[in-house]
Amino acid sequence: MTMSAAPHRVTVIGGGFGGLEAAKHLAAAPVEVTLIDRRNFHLFQPLTYQVATGALSPAEVCYPLRAIFKGRPNVRVVMATVEAVDLEERKLRLQPSAEGGEAFDLGYDTLVVAAGSAYSYFGHEEWRQVAPEVKSLESALELRARLLGAFEAAELEADAERRCALLTFVVVGGGPTGVEMAGQIAELARDTLSDEFRTIDPGEARVLLVEMADRVLTTFPPSLSRKAKSQLEHLGVTPMLGHTVVGIDAESVTVEGGVEAARRIPAHNVIWAAGVTASALGGALAEQCGGEVDKAGRILVEPDLTLPGNPGVFAIGDMIRVRRPGGEAQALPGVAPVAMQQGRYAAKAVRARLEGRSVSPFHYLDKGNLATIGRARAVADLHLVRLSGFPAWLTWLFVHLWYLIGFQNRLLVFVRWSFSFLTRGRGARVIAEGGEERESGRAA
Amino acid sequence: MTMSAAPHRVTVIGGGFGGLEAAKHLAAAPVEVTLIDRRNFHLFQPLTYQVATGALSPAEVCYPLRAIFKGRPNVRVVMATVEAVDLEERKLRLQPSAEGGEAFDLGYDTLVVAAGSAYSYFGHEEWRQVAPEVKSLESALELRARLLGAFEAAELEADAERRCALLTFVVVGGGPTGVEMAGQIAELARDTLSDEFRTIDPGEARVLLVEMADRVLTTFPPSLSRKAKSQLEHLGVTPMLGHTVVGIDAESVTVEGGVEAARRIPAHNVIWAAGVTASALGGALAEQCGGEVDKAGRILVEPDLTLPGNPGVFAIGDMIRVRRPGGEAQALPGVAPVAMQQGRYAAKAVRARLEGRSVSPFHYLDKGNLATIGRARAVADLHLVRLSGFPAWLTWLFVHLWYLIGFQNRLLVFVRWSFSFLTRGRGARVIAEGGEERESGRAA
Repeated sequence: MTMSAAPHRVTVIGGGFGGLEAAKHLAAAPVEVTLIDRRNFHLFQPLTYQVATGALSPAEVCYPLRAIFKGRPNVRVVMATVEAVDLEERKLRLQPSAEGGEAFDLGYDTLVVAAGSAYSYFGHEEWRQVAPEVKSLESALELRARLLGAFEAAELEADAERRCALLTFVVVGGGPTGVEMAGQIAELARDTLSDEFRTIDPGEARVLLVEMADRVLTTFPPSLSRKAKSQLEHLGVTPMLGHTVVGIDAESVTVEGGVEAARRIPAHNVIWAAGVTASALGGALAEQCGGEVDKAGRILVEPDLTLPGNPGVFAIGDMIRVRRPGGEAQALPGVAPVAMQQGRYAAKAVRARLEGRSVSPFHYLDKGNLATIGRARAVADLHLVRLSGFPAWLTWLFVHLWYLIGFQNRLLVFVRWSFSFLTRGRGARVIAEGGEERESGRAA
Repeated sequence: MTMSAAPHRVTVIGGGFGGLEAAKHLAAAPVEVTLIDRRNFHLFQPLTYQVATGALSPAEVCYPLRAIFKGRPNVRVVMATVEAVDLEERKLRLQPSAEGGEAFDLGYDTLVVAAGSAYSYFGHEEWRQVAPEVKSLESALELRARLLGAFEAAELEADAERRCALLTFVVVGGGPTGVEMAGQIAELARDTLSDEFRTIDPGEARVLLVEMADRVLTTFPPSLSRKAKSQLEHLGVTPMLGHTVVGIDAESVTVEGGVEAARRIPAHNVIWAAGVTASALGGALAEQCGGEVDKAGRILVEPDLTLPGNPGVFAIGDMIRVRRPGGEAQALPGVAPVAMQQGRYAAKAVRARLEGRSVSPFHYLDKGNLATIGRARAVADLHLVRLSGFPAWLTWLFVHLWYLIGFQNRLLVFVRWSFSFLTRGRGARVIAEGGEERESGRAA
């Protein structure tokens, strides 16, 4: 029962890689697009960890959503949190992010849900306070303050044991983010901060990388995992493969591995890069449409990325698994290219339907897999060719600059990376964004 | 009773313009320098307001203190707050800024106090919560979140009156900071955000500049004040001269002016740029040395910038007034050049004394006065010549880029300003640094 004159209303939930692509590819179509995000910016998540180590500044990896759709009057950006979805009534309940706003309802004709995922602490929510992750910008800024603060605290710490614990950094999870963080912390300690302290030698910091599997980067071929491991060791990172974290508190991590008994490692800095769990919105949708949700909270969608029995509702990105035309479920990697291709697919499907055409099932074109380990160190699995070291690093650099939104951000990040490469410095080592409470502006 | 072999210990409190210059000019001397700041960075305060409006990113106006003294083993940086100074015993009580640190004592032979000043709310501390200032980085980030958040809230606000209050911005204080803030907010609303909203027209935002005196920029010649006022009006700012703020709450400002009765203006955004008060350290020192403190909390120092009766203790910057060789007290403007010249003077005096030489009283070389109003709009009083408009703006631009620390920061700020000039955009419009509490990383 749509009114014939009113334009088709497409609502997109989430301004991440998937949602943004969907909105962009609908901007020129004869539809009314509403893009909902609880932040006012798109975050280039693959580089968020560089904000945490002071290599980049927040604004260099963020782009205002409104600026992207400045010249697009049919795209409306709403800064709000989705509190509920009503598939029956085709409407959303939204709570404005800005203070003092009142919740309101928003109807839709087509819905694209791209709500993403968050780090899961495997049922140990209390670890979140002591072991920040680097997926959200806020957490990355808090982590930055903690990492740099640990060196500051160590410089003024008289007790040798406490000093050692302050200078012990444990990264949990040996996927791309964990590997990147471990490498960056090692470089921060050994290169950037060298000669800057008078009591401690930052180069004596210990960086441990705890991974349950018997190799790092399990989504890469074993040969590249081995190369990544040796590059990490070269940087001074100690990979602890086959180990599981069983406890974290403000002053230590407890790990278990193989035949060893549980071991407590005094460490003031734990960085969480282990498992992710899909947005709770997936579960809420599954309840209404009778869909399946797996252990990681991902909802199973049809081959055309729509919810079972709800052809007007798409779900995309790392919050879904896709039913193959054959029948079995496929979990694609939770990376930007998957989300972007799915976002474009959803936009294409919406446009096709309005024109009375049908689309073939979604197919992911896997162009390869990249992970950086440090300065001039990376691995790249481009299927036809596998690279490591400098050529892989150049590939990584080029791809990330290419996909950053906005020429200004590309230029700024290029400037920062060039300086970092030449001087081994890190220009964004500001403690005090986020984290701390505001105080009056006295200098000392 | 100093040990003959031990090097002379100079302790500098504060890594602002004055303290930093003092430490830098002592780095090559045969002394042991300790630089204390509660932050890990030097803040280029004249540009902090551009962080508040999203024109610049924090790291672009901050420089890590440790990086400045990387190659200087005789300079030690301590990240701590000064809790007490004991002039008699020549020692300080320090509280480390990093969490969990224990307070400790630090002795000195010579002390340079450069603790700066903070905004004073004229006895209305409760206004601080509703009217952020732009002197400290944390407050500037909170202000950024509030300014951008006000437009977001207005876009979703159904009530017209509330929408109008959300889009009313009141800047208190018509000095350089107030004028700069008012101009930037007007440009943000009229240029940067235009065509980005679908319900509101950001260009309808009202920007009021409340100033007690009968002209803005009272430290400039009246002719330049008039030019500044007309440039502000051209940008859409309404100067309310001869008006005083008598009340601020979360939803309004009450002003009084001339024969008018007090008037309540509904406004959700108040920016404080009125009076400053010197660091409380000045008062604490005055108590111990029997020195005078004026209403703004500034301690009176000797013509050589030392405390009365304490030739080993210098105080510099905007926390002091200087006794002229004639006798009367002189309050120099609270700007960077004064602090920098005094920092260099203190360093020179310390070096001279160690060599048995004496120095002539401090003399401030006033090179002029600059204030920017907006894109291609500024005023410059260079004594020999007075400029306004584009030539003044170019002068302002060049001077600020020149004094920024670090070639990387100069390049980054130049890139941001070039883009802003060409596109009228603002690249650092990220809400969520500071201010908000951390939540899990869900996209929406």
